[in-house]
Parts: sequence; C-alpha cells; structure tokens
Amino acid sequence: MVKSVQPLSSHANEQRQAELAALIADKTMPTGALGALIPIAMQLGLIQTGNSLSASPVSFWIFAADHGLADEGVSAYPKAVTVQMVMNFLMGGAAINVFARQHGLLLKVVNAGVASPLPEAFSNHPDLINHPLAQGTSSSLKGMAMSLEQARQAVATGFQLVVHNTAPIVGFGEMGIGNSSAAALLTACLCDADLNECIGRGTGVDDDGLSRKKAILLNVMSRHHNDQIANPTATAIERSVFQLASLGGFEIAMMAGAFLGAAASRKLALVDGFIATSAALVACAMAPATRDYLLFTHQSAEPGHALALKHLQASGLLNMGLRLGEGSGAALAVPLVQSAAAFFNEMASFSSAGVSNKNSSTGSA
Amino acid sequence: MVKSVQPLSSHANEQRQAELAALIADKTMPTGALGALIPIAMQLGLIQTGNSLSASPVSFWIFAADHGLADEGVSAYPKAVTVQMVMNFLMGGAAINVFARQHGLLLKVVNAGVASPLPEAFSNHPDLINHPLAQGTSSSLKGMAMSLEQARQAVATGFQLVVHNTAPIVGFGEMGIGNSSAAALLTACLCDADLNECIGRGTGVDDDGLSRKKAILLNVMSRHHNDQIANPTATAIERSVFQLASLGGFEIAMMAGAFLGAAASRKLALVDGFIATSAALVACAMAPATRDYLLFTHQSAEPGHALALKHLQASGLLNMGLRLGEGSGAALAVPLVQSAAAFFNEMASFSSAGVSNKNSSTGSA
Repeated sequence: MVKSVQPLSSHANEQRQAELAALIADKTMPTGALGALIPIAMQLGLIQTGNSLSASPVSFWIFAADHGLADEGVSAYPKAVTVQMVMNFLMGGAAINVFARQHGLLLKVVNAGVASPLPEAFSNHPDLINHPLAQGTSSSLKGMAMSLEQARQAVATGFQLVVHNTAPIVGFGEMGIGNSSAAALLTACLCDADLNECIGRGTGVDDDGLSRKKAILLNVMSRHHNDQIANPTATAIERSVFQLASLGGFEIAMMAGAFLGAAASRKLALVDGFIATSAALVACAMAPATRDYLLFTHQSAEPGHALALKHLQASGLLNMGLRLGEGSGAALAVPLVQSAAAFFNEMASFSSAGVSNKNSSTGSA
Repeated sequence: MVKSVQPLSSHANEQRQAELAALIADKTMPTGALGALIPIAMQLGLIQTGNSLSASPVSFWIFAADHGLADEGVSAYPKAVTVQMVMNFLMGGAAINVFARQHGLLLKVVNAGVASPLPEAFSNHPDLINHPLAQGTSSSLKGMAMSLEQARQAVATGFQLVVHNTAPIVGFGEMGIGNSSAAALLTACLCDADLNECIGRGTGVDDDGLSRKKAILLNVMSRHHNDQIANPTATAIERSVFQLASLGGFEIAMMAGAFLGAAASRKLALVDGFIATSAALVACAMAPATRDYLLFTHQSAEPGHALALKHLQASGLLNMGLRLGEGSGAALAVPLVQSAAAFFNEMASFSSAGVSNKNSSTGSA
C-alpha cells in the first residue's frame, strides 16, 4: 500500500505545473494577489487531472480511542470523556458536528478502540464505524501501548476506509483522552526532537499537571529508548510500526493509515492540529511522497505542533489559537480550500474580461 | 449620525457579557479551545440581543472610484482598469464574485466616482448602485483630492446605504487604481506615522515604481502638511472630513460612512485589507465607538496595514498574504464568522450532552 503513493513533484508533472501556473497568472488579479490560496489551487491541480478542480464533497472521519497513559494522570479530563464525546458526536452536539453541518461534510465516527462500551442505543448508529483494536491501549509507561499486529491492523484499516472513498478531499479528526501525550512521544521520536519541547497542556492541564505530564512522558521515553524505536537497520515501515506500537494510540495509527490511503488514491488530505500531524509524521515516514497530498490546515496552540510542521516543511493555513482536536481546524479550513478551487474554476481571465494587465515593461503606469 | 454609535464596552453590557461568557464556557470543549472564534461570538453577542446569534445574510458592497493620483504614476496598472474591473464585477468574473457566490453574499457594486463612463449595457444592471461624486478625484499632488462637500456627501451616502439594510453582518470591498496611495496618505495622517512605512507595492509596482510612488506621496504630504489636516482646534469630524477631502478617494470616504452606518445600526462590519482599514481609521476617528463593531478579517501583505491594525489595537483573523482588495479577504472570512455564531447556537453543553467537565480542583485527572 505504501508503494502506491506517487510523488507529485516528479518530472512527469512539470508540464501540468506550468499549465496550471499559466492559467492562474491569467486570472484578473495582480500576480499572486490571492496569497495562500494559490499554492492550494496548484496542489489540487497536481493531484487531479481535469481542466477544472474538484473540491467537494469532503469526506471526514473522526477516529476515537482510549489510552492506557490516561490512567497515569496525563490529562485534565477523565478517560470516560472519550466515550461520552463519541456519543456527543453521534448526537450531533460537538463542535465538529456544527462545522460539518455548516460545510456539508460527510462525517463518520470510527471507534478505533474506546475503553467503555457504547450504550446499546448508539451501537447501530448509521454514522458509527466499529473497528476497535481493543478497549484502549495499554500504558506505554509499563510496556508496549499495543502489539505490532494491532499497529499494522490499525494502519491497514485507516488505509482501507479512505482508499475506497470517492471524495476528492478528505479530512480527519480524533478523540482520545491522553492522546496529546502519545502525539508528543511520537513527534519527539519522528522529528528527533527534545521531548520536553513537544509537551503542552493538551486539553488544559495546569502548571502542576504539566509538570506531572512531563515527568511521566520522560519516564515513558526512557523506558522505550533502548529498544527498536530508533533501529537504523529496520525498514522505515518496520520502524514506524514499532514506534506506533510502543508509544501510539489506535486512533493515531488508524489516521496514519488514512493519510496513506488518501495519498494512494490521489485525494487532498486535510491535516488538523497536533495529534493529526503526529499521524501525518508517521505516514510520511512510511511513504515520504504522502507529504505531497497533505494540506496543513492550522497552527495549533500546542508547542509540539510548530516543531512537527517545521519538520514537514509546512505551515498552518489558519493561525487562530485552536486546540480542540476533533478535526475542528481542518473543518474550518474547508471553505478556504474550496475557494482555491473556485477561483481557479470560475474567475475570468484578463483577455476574456477585457481587463488591461500590468504593463510589465514599465513596471508602473 | 455619529452620535448614534453606541459603545459595546459600557457598563450596561456587563451583564450580557457575563451571560455570553457563561454560555460559551459550558460548551462541550476545553476552555478557550476554539481560539479566535470565541471573541467573534462574544462580539456578535454584544452587538445583538437575542438568545441565538444571527450571522446571515451578509450584505456586501464594493465601492469603486478613480484617483487623480493615478495619473502621476503611482500604480502598476493603468487607470482604465477601474472601470474594466467594475464591468468584471457586474459580469461575475472577479475573485469577489466567486467568493460571493460560494458564500451567498448579497453583493452590490457602487460607482462612487469612476472616471470613464460605463457602457450602456451595464448602466441598468440590477447589482449596480450609481452614486458618483465626480469622474474620479483630482490629483492630491496638485491640490485637494475633492471638495469638503464631496467628502461629506460620500460619507453620508455610505452611511445611508448600510444603515437601512437589514443584514446582521456587512462587508465592504473597494476598487480604484491608485487607492493604495490614498490609503497610505490617510494611514500616515490618522496614525501619526512615518509615511514611508505606510507605502507598499500596491497591485505590484517594481523597485523603480516603488521609489517613484514614495517620492510622489512624500510630495503630496508636504504640500498638504501645513493646512488644516492636523488642525487641533477642529472637531474630530471636521478634521476627518478635511483629511478625506485632501488625500482620500470617493470609495474610501463612502466606505468610512458605511462603517459608521454599520455601527449605528448595530451590525458587525467586516474590514478587508489596507484600503478598507484606512476607511475604518477615518470612521473610528469620527466616532470612536465604531471600533466595537469592526472585525478585522485579515492581515494584508501591504506594510501600512500592520501599522493601521496596531493603531486600532486589532489583528487580522486570517494571515494568508492576500493583497487583492475587492473585499476578497473579508469574503473569505465569512464562513469563520458564521462558524462562531454556529458553535454558539448549536453546540451541546456539558450537562445536556452528559460529558464530564474538567475537574478543576485537581487540575488533571
């Protein structure tokens, strides 16, 4: 599944790139005046092959799972909140539901491994996809968070969910009390960064909570440091699977597979905040060309996120101090992505509109 | 008309503010997790009085006019582009048309004083509002850009257009070759700033063009410096009218009136980039409480814009390197403003959704 990801920056795409750039340059606006919308139109144009860009529908999955680490006291919220929020998603009351309704996103909730069983009333909900790997991960403070087989299975499940979908754009969210800890561990590992710089307040631990979170995560890392996490003789995929199994979460592993599936099926994938970016780091480690299919929708308030974005040579489209997760930032960015497609598809050209272009020989008129 | 602008930050609003904050704090998300959307919901809530926030429809006006200064060689584009772009707006081919269709904005084009007559075929277009003060301003290098009476009339016209509209949110764009020069002059004047720091490339002058633009504008300012522009004995309104008449443009003066009209009729007004912010500076000088009704939608690439925003203690919601004008940045921000209303109106509360809130006594669970 990793071999099926084709890079967009290859020589084969040079002609397409030149064609797209010429079409954009002829739109009735000063060169580059639409700023960050222009590279989005270029990216969509390189992913797709048609004369006009397709930016709807947008399919969206929220991956939910629990974390053994949550029992060690790394979060401001009790573990029970994960299943409660899954019910909130299915009842339509969470922020992501509001934004999904506003923008017409096709939203599904994936139980990737929530600890508590969902009440009977929800178990056949049409928007619920049940693929639990277990009832939450084990604590990475005490051993592997999951087995290698579970990590592989989670990645494969995420891949399959997305690769068979027909939307041109896909987005992912997550829910899992404790998952900013798993994301910090994975980010430190995959960016070869100082773990302390990757740890933030998550859903909002206070100063004492942050000190405890840091102490616990440093212990987790020292426990796993000497095993195969950084094994240079392993393949990139074996190493990534081992990192996910040691430190990850089911929802993160599944989302990593989902990013791979998006790239393999030539879809633009919207990357939300810190947790989603940690999954994107894993996907890019497994298949570097995945990077070409990712759009980083916002810069989160979590400190580790800036570090991960830098590692991926990316910057967030929005910078609004969001730190909610659920894919809320990715959902908020959807209209901007659709604006990029719309200006490309619908704006008049200088010649068609009878508008004088800049006289470049004098520079100023 | 200026006296009818009521400040939102008064004691009378303290109870409403506390009620809004409590409702937001009970939404199923960690405190403050929706970042910049939260102050937007608060602002809408203070402007409006209902239990739910109204964020549609959005009425939108593009003010177009020509500038005598354009004949002095301050722009990268010929003056004829203003009327050509007005036709492009009326034919639906400009960027603002694309975004207006995408977001359902009620878009009107106002001829505030375009130099060339519109072809017959456009003169009865249903989306055109004809309020020309003249066929373009005079060159401020040679004298007043317009008469005091024209400046007053332009402000009054903008005010009337907006104050009688029933939309809860309004946005404004502009078109006028040369208007980044008028905006730079007004910004320097109203922020008491170094004119050089207010001058940028506009639609894209090259290095030589920028040097020429700076030399011309410094001459304009020295010509007007000794008259009533900074007259401390004039009222704020007289001074603002004089500044508009000396240095402004018809579209900028009309937009200043439109901001006043929005505030007087308790509407949220979306401020676009550099030119729109120069009009907002004028409106806030005339009636300081206008500031409470403004939402600054983006940080433009023009250097003077950062300076104007700082003067107004504002920051742009989006930071995407936009420098198109037409109100394009304001239009792109509309879905985010509507998301702020939607989360306030539709998100479940902790108690209604059965979600455990953070245990603030321990800080971390």
